[in-house]
Amino acid sequence: MAAAHIDMQARTAAWSGRFNEAMDERLLGYNASIPFDYRLALHDIRASIAHARMLAAQAIIPQPDFAVIEQGLLGIAQDIRDGTFQWSRALEDVHFNIERRLTERIGDAGKRLHTARSRNDQVATSMRLYLREAIAGIRQRIRHLQRAFVEQASQHADLLMPGFTHLQVAQPVTFGHHLMAYFEMLERDDGRFGDCATRLNQLPLGSAALAGTSFPIDREAVAHELGFDGVTRNSMDSVSDRDFVLEFLAAAAVLMIHLSRLSEELILWSSSAFGFVALPDRFCTGSSIMPQKKNPDIPELARAKAGRMLGLLTGAMAMMKAQPLAYNKDNQETQEAMFDAEQVLVTTLEVFTGLVAGLQPNASRMLAAADAGYATATDLADLLVRRSIPFRDAHEVVARVVRQAEAQGCPLAGLGEEVIATLMAQTLGIELQRARSILGDDLQRVLSVRGSAESRSHTGGTAPEAVRREVARARQLLNAAPGL
Amino acid sequence: MAAAHIDMQARTAAWSGRFNEAMDERLLGYNASIPFDYRLALHDIRASIAHARMLAAQAIIPQPDFAVIEQGLLGIAQDIRDGTFQWSRALEDVHFNIERRLTERIGDAGKRLHTARSRNDQVATSMRLYLREAIAGIRQRIRHLQRAFVEQASQHADLLMPGFTHLQVAQPVTFGHHLMAYFEMLERDDGRFGDCATRLNQLPLGSAALAGTSFPIDREAVAHELGFDGVTRNSMDSVSDRDFVLEFLAAAAVLMIHLSRLSEELILWSSSAFGFVALPDRFCTGSSIMPQKKNPDIPELARAKAGRMLGLLTGAMAMMKAQPLAYNKDNQETQEAMFDAEQVLVTTLEVFTGLVAGLQPNASRMLAAADAGYATATDLADLLVRRSIPFRDAHEVVARVVRQAEAQGCPLAGLGEEVIATLMAQTLGIELQRARSILGDDLQRVLSVRGSAESRSHTGGTAPEAVRREVARARQLLNAAPGL
Amino acid sequence: MAAAHIDMQARTAAWSGRFNEAMDERLLGYNASIPFDYRLALHDIRASIAHARMLAAQAIIPQPDFAVIEQGLLGIAQDIRDGTFQWSRALEDVHFNIERRLTERIGDAGKRLHTARSRNDQVATSMRLYLREAIAGIRQRIRHLQRAFVEQASQHADLLMPGFTHLQVAQPVTFGHHLMAYFEMLERDDGRFGDCATRLNQLPLGSAALAGTSFPIDREAVAHELGFDGVTRNSMDSVSDRDFVLEFLAAAAVLMIHLSRLSEELILWSSSAFGFVALPDRFCTGSSIMPQKKNPDIPELARAKAGRMLGLLTGAMAMMKAQPLAYNKDNQETQEAMFDAEQVLVTTLEVFTGLVAGLQPNASRMLAAADAGYATATDLADLLVRRSIPFRDAHEVVARVVRQAEAQGCPLAGLGEEVIATLMAQTLGIELQRARSILGDDLQRVLSVRGSAESRSHTGGTAPEAVRREVARARQLLNAAPGL
Amino acid sequence: MAAAHIDMQARTAAWSGRFNEAMDERLLGYNASIPFDYRLALHDIRASIAHARMLAAQAIIPQPDFAVIEQGLLGIAQDIRDGTFQWSRALEDVHFNIERRLTERIGDAGKRLHTARSRNDQVATSMRLYLREAIAGIRQRIRHLQRAFVEQASQHADLLMPGFTHLQVAQPVTFGHHLMAYFEMLERDDGRFGDCATRLNQLPLGSAALAGTSFPIDREAVAHELGFDGVTRNSMDSVSDRDFVLEFLAAAAVLMIHLSRLSEELILWSSSAFGFVALPDRFCTGSSIMPQKKNPDIPELARAKAGRMLGLLTGAMAMMKAQPLAYNKDNQETQEAMFDAEQVLVTTLEVFTGLVAGLQPNASRMLAAADAGYATATDLADLLVRRSIPFRDAHEVVARVVRQAEAQGCPLAGLGEEVIATLMAQTLGIELQRARSILGDDLQRVLSVRGSAESRSHTGGTAPEAVRREVARARQLLNAAPGL
Repeated sequence: MAAAHIDMQARTAAWSGRFNEAMDERLLGYNASIPFDYRLALHDIRASIAHARMLAAQAIIPQPDFAVIEQGLLGIAQDIRDGTFQWSRALEDVHFNIERRLTERIGDAGKRLHTARSRNDQVATSMRLYLREAIAGIRQRIRHLQRAFVEQASQHADLLMPGFTHLQVAQPVTFGHHLMAYFEMLERDDGRFGDCATRLNQLPLGSAALAGTSFPIDREAVAHELGFDGVTRNSMDSVSDRDFVLEFLAAAAVLMIHLSRLSEELILWSSSAFGFVALPDRFCTGSSIMPQKKNPDIPELARAKAGRMLGLLTGAMAMMKAQPLAYNKDNQETQEAMFDAEQVLVTTLEVFTGLVAGLQPNASRMLAAADAGYATATDLADLLVRRSIPFRDAHEVVARVVRQAEAQGCPLAGLGEEVIATLMAQTLGIELQRARSILGDDLQRVLSVRGSAESRSHTGGTAPEAVRREVARARQLLNAAPGL
Repeated sequence: MAAAHIDMQARTAAWSGRFNEAMDERLLGYNASIPFDYRLALHDIRASIAHARMLAAQAIIPQPDFAVIEQGLLGIAQDIRDGTFQWSRALEDVHFNIERRLTERIGDAGKRLHTARSRNDQVATSMRLYLREAIAGIRQRIRHLQRAFVEQASQHADLLMPGFTHLQVAQPVTFGHHLMAYFEMLERDDGRFGDCATRLNQLPLGSAALAGTSFPIDREAVAHELGFDGVTRNSMDSVSDRDFVLEFLAAAAVLMIHLSRLSEELILWSSSAFGFVALPDRFCTGSSIMPQKKNPDIPELARAKAGRMLGLLTGAMAMMKAQPLAYNKDNQETQEAMFDAEQVLVTTLEVFTGLVAGLQPNASRMLAAADAGYATATDLADLLVRRSIPFRDAHEVVARVVRQAEAQGCPLAGLGEEVIATLMAQTLGIELQRARSILGDDLQRVLSVRGSAESRSHTGGTAPEAVRREVARARQLLNAAPGL
Repeated sequence: MAAAHIDMQARTAAWSGRFNEAMDERLLGYNASIPFDYRLALHDIRASIAHARMLAAQAIIPQPDFAVIEQGLLGIAQDIRDGTFQWSRALEDVHFNIERRLTERIGDAGKRLHTARSRNDQVATSMRLYLREAIAGIRQRIRHLQRAFVEQASQHADLLMPGFTHLQVAQPVTFGHHLMAYFEMLERDDGRFGDCATRLNQLPLGSAALAGTSFPIDREAVAHELGFDGVTRNSMDSVSDRDFVLEFLAAAAVLMIHLSRLSEELILWSSSAFGFVALPDRFCTGSSIMPQKKNPDIPELARAKAGRMLGLLTGAMAMMKAQPLAYNKDNQETQEAMFDAEQVLVTTLEVFTGLVAGLQPNASRMLAAADAGYATATDLADLLVRRSIPFRDAHEVVARVVRQAEAQGCPLAGLGEEVIATLMAQTLGIELQRARSILGDDLQRVLSVRGSAESRSHTGGTAPEAVRREVARARQLLNAAPGL
Repeated sequence: MAAAHIDMQARTAAWSGRFNEAMDERLLGYNASIPFDYRLALHDIRASIAHARMLAAQAIIPQPDFAVIEQGLLGIAQDIRDGTFQWSRALEDVHFNIERRLTERIGDAGKRLHTARSRNDQVATSMRLYLREAIAGIRQRIRHLQRAFVEQASQHADLLMPGFTHLQVAQPVTFGHHLMAYFEMLERDDGRFGDCATRLNQLPLGSAALAGTSFPIDREAVAHELGFDGVTRNSMDSVSDRDFVLEFLAAAAVLMIHLSRLSEELILWSSSAFGFVALPDRFCTGSSIMPQKKNPDIPELARAKAGRMLGLLTGAMAMMKAQPLAYNKDNQETQEAMFDAEQVLVTTLEVFTGLVAGLQPNASRMLAAADAGYATATDLADLLVRRSIPFRDAHEVVARVVRQAEAQGCPLAGLGEEVIATLMAQTLGIELQRARSILGDDLQRVLSVRGSAESRSHTGGTAPEAVRREVARARQLLNAAPGL
């Protein structure tokens, strides 16, 4: 939908019959929501048509009025899509703007549309319709980004790199395995958005201002037409509830936290200290003063936008805190958070789908880093344990081996079997000969980065084989996802 | 579980083999998590037993070792329940404390327990077990509080009070209807906690430090014994993921926001300006200087604790932002937020269950307030609409009627039919006679508070009849809830 | 400054010499800051002129170049003020837009402007200049709002109302005293903004990208021309520091919290339950369905915007957390928070200045509420204490008196001296005669609402006399404030 | 002060005279603040003595009573310091606990202490006294940490390392310069805490419950005895204000953000990818499964605690939002945030002082990284500019030179003068000979890392000479700081 053109000239507000004073120009700017809620227009119209159809079916308005209302609203919807609709700030919000225009176009029938409803249930309905659609779009983009991870993981299931804990080299992992961690995070994100969409999919319309209405309405019919799973059960809750915004923002914040973690890694990996990946030029910027720079602006911005999303969540929660029932104007401010969050999610997911697809790993830098960091120390410990040394004792042996390797400035494999056996004999108080026989003849394989990774082939493990299994599973899952 | 007694004397940490320097006393205090993570002890033990059983079944440790380990751990669990277990801060966390004690009790077999796992997957497992149980307890308490609302609503389904929007008297509602709004909020809360519990119920154990393990483990067997629905699919994600804490805190924050709204209303209602309800004395405190005061301390504290919960959520999200994979020590701080949030939820829910059950409404104050506030103006408008006046025109008529009533200082009904008909005729430009016939003969019923409420009998409406239907539905739902 | 018109057509970015790929259209939207940072334009130009003058003075650029640069920049500034400047999104930010235009206008001399600086120190300088001016504007508006409070307080220094703690009627206060509480809050707000403005008033220019520059610059001269108190002392800190934004947002959040408290009170006071004040019609809205409603939308929105401000603060702090030095692109996102916060503060302060000035208290409702709430119970206790009854004993006596009055449904004064003396004798275990003599003959004055308020005449007390003293002091303070 | 031992047995609360029901056991736990506010005990006693002295001086209580009260309170203070004071949860808070004990010790005189005050102004006074002292302690620790930075900077003023922007190598800096950036951040932190301490240093005592008192008190005398700069000017503001907590938490959050940035750098620098510094062993932990690991737990925890602090701030602000005046129980929850924040700040500052002092830089790794990253590209550009090439043209030349060096896999200096001159001639469209002459004969010095750093010697620049000047200035500043 095109950005709104808003007429700032004051006209009469819809509720102004009772008041002696017109609203101050400055106050209009403070009060009006049309600069952001115009985004609800098409959903508002859709809900109005369903409402009017039901009013006519229940004989609350004349049947011919419905035909006129529907035609009028469809015409307005077309104007909005075309960008020719003229919004007025004096009419405060999207609902009044549309209703006023409708009455201008079709006369008295338009005035009957607002029968048996209120702005309070109307805005709640439009917001739920909007958010339901927004979430569907976000989930589709999550799938696209997941697919980018899966394809990269498939291609790099064998690529060895150091795995980090505490940003210290810990154990070898495969690049494919590392990338698939983000597939899993996004899978949970998708689930949270899905739960949110399911929970919000109850129709609040018919709650009117806060108490329901005295007209013989048929809420189930409206719910059915609008694709809701049912109707809300309490009118006061329905007009004051913004849980769906809070739950959406919480899911959004967690998703952005995941992408901020990826961003942090991309920034690290593309630094010269790591040199693990190159980001495509088109995702980077240069420096005005340092021509050699290739800055990872996109991940940095996404990292910051995780903070922004946290702010949107915090702000909206603080808005809802301690409000008495039922509707209060405070709720209006939650809309901006919802719109801003959707925008951030959509653009970030789209940008990252391209970015992830374009990542170019540097295999030699990755392997060198894995080799240099004593990353297979655990494997040595596990070998000892398999040869019946208690884990904690094995740990002590390996700790001394690492200290020796550090002192000599060589990798573990570089120490040689004899040194390792000697340290082991000393630590455990056993004969050197016994130590040698415990170590056996596959020490070099165990101490190798590839051997380490390949040995972790159970579900969830980092072995290329395990990664390929998860890639296959993920593809099935994505292929089964709706709308892809 | 009794509060932990912690030995602050320094002993050797489990990982200390490699280091040349002992950890500074001050640092121990900064680093140790045992002052809070002792709460995980019984879950840690349960997971350790399942892990050891699997190790034996897979022949990774000798079968007899398992028997000794299990017996040792059960003994430790008993000591912990009895409050006789001596925790040591120098052993940093609950996991080392238990493992060290196990080794003291059973010797070498104890050292084998840590085979094929790491503290990273161990703590993730214990936290999930803990949180799963915590959520079950919270959900049960949500049900108790819901039942308190349902019983009060049942008793007061007919009790009339003003419904507010913008804290202005809007339309009459029933007290039962108002209370049932909170039933609905809690229903969504319960759903969110349920979704969180379902999503977290995947076993991370077997992820080891971050890459999985080279031992031939059987993760599904452990998952089955511990009641998990399955195993996590990526070891790096499994040790770095704290989504379950964030999702729990988000659900907790929304629940506390709901209770903060109730608190705000209880504070308002028990003020002398409103006088709608009396809180039982035992939920109030007096003033040290103003003996006439009966302060709603409990709702005020709960209102503040909604802020505290928001802080816990914000803090935990900020902790997780931009962490590179896999495990970092930052994650440790999320535990305190989890424990604090559980404590706040449990106590608040329990206290509010008693508070809601003990609410004593003041029917006459409620009715008087509903009568005084022109709360049936909408009903007059609706009457006109039913008599074919377009909604917006009817609105204008009623606006003038209200202004007249305000000027005369009387309720709408007090104006008399003749005055209303005259204003109507002037506004619409019709004959007085026509206005009289439009108004018809049920004007007094329409303008009455009770008539207004009773006319809103559709699903979600405020009519006593509708409230009773929802109460019946809610009771069925609660009776069907597990564990109640 | 008029809103920016931005050309979305792609052109070449300033740093593009090195790159093989142009930036993707979608990425431009993600990356470009010009949609918000155009607000810095005039400050950027001012700083550029000062920088260029210094470059010429130090013979880093030819003197004639400076003249041309200055003229060019002044022309651009005029175009910006006129709204004729064409911004380009492809040029990313305000700095490149202006520099590119300058070079188009004046040729090679324009290319010399960027000598000895970087966008990193340039944006830090522009933001500080902008924020310094923004804070000055905010402080002036704080003064205006304070004056509105002072004038209302002056007019209503004698007006009695109940003072609340825990929203329970506690003791009588004067409306003037209550209003002056907000004067004090705003006084602290003003101090915080002042401290922030002082602390940020150090010139970062000359820090270049992060390390300073090899040109013989004169930072003190630039600082002097731009009105800074000095120069920053560390170039790495200078380009990465956004403390001034965080400190500004924290001060803004506290200010909005104050106004949210006022908003809460205005909402309560204008409810029919309280009826203490009427808000002017032009600050309220009506209801689309309930014609009798006069909704306090402005205070409700302000209350919500306090939540929004908290979100801006939280978000910006989360953005800055754990960034390594020196400049990262994350910092860009803090700008939007700064601009949004300024906008919220300016409009809210302006709107509230009118709102506070237009408040119309309802003296009879206030007095009736103060009379009804046993608000002088403390005064009775104090009387007893002055007659040598220990405070805690007096407290017990008064508690029983209140209980008796509640049982009889009358105010304290309505009980009569004899009843009070009897209760006192029973509680303290003294003769009735002694009790009578302790009470003395000024009991009615002590129990009166006016007598209670008038007796609290010390500094900070609620007595009309004390309020008038504070009003006089406040006027002096405001008259001495700069720029008013 | 030793941790509090609290008696959980129910006794009668101080305000219980009026109530028919005793408080529920569970509610006591929810309501009582003694588990945390016992920390205020000594400040509460100090304020009580000052208050009692004034009461006697004003003849509000008998002079002998003061002597008894003072002696009684000093005895209680001694018991508290000795850890023998028995706290009772049934007495709710620190104030009632002390007053009740006082009355037990000295009889009726104890009951007179509470004359002319309330818990509301009492707790506000105790909190300000406490926070004033806490801030003094924090500022002293800030100075200690600053000194650690200064000493390290002094020692390493010449040590070259790469400076980063966007975590890309940008320009050479000195390690001393980098460390002094933190000195500057802490300097601003110190200023913010100082401003907070100054602003809070007004005595609220005498505000009583909310309206002041009818006794002829002398607030200035109490303020003087307690070291306050003056008295607060409005009693309602005084009892409801918690700005000082919010301002303290905001300052604390910014400080922790600074330390989180340092933490991030320490984690990066001590990773094997960077290898710039070694953290002393005693600040690290090992891994239970990976014996080679040396984990930077302390920086990781501090990074997380920055999130925790943000949560404390957010929570406290949300608590204060939209509270009506005057005192509400919500305020009680802000205390826990204050105490927790102080604890985090004190321990983190102490731990970091040791950590910073013990940092061991690895000069060769730092230099190698600076050499490898084209960090002197800007210097080449600046050289061209000094030889009259417009900045933007010079930028283009250098961009091509960098691209060439990248293609050849060599540092800039490795390209040789001839290649650089050729690229320059092509880019600018000039003769090769002219290009050579422009480059001149100091190209190698300009392209060297040391030459680059040394050339930035202005105030704020990274040159060793500039660092030494700032170190000297910082030492003067620290030596002049109070209490060091």
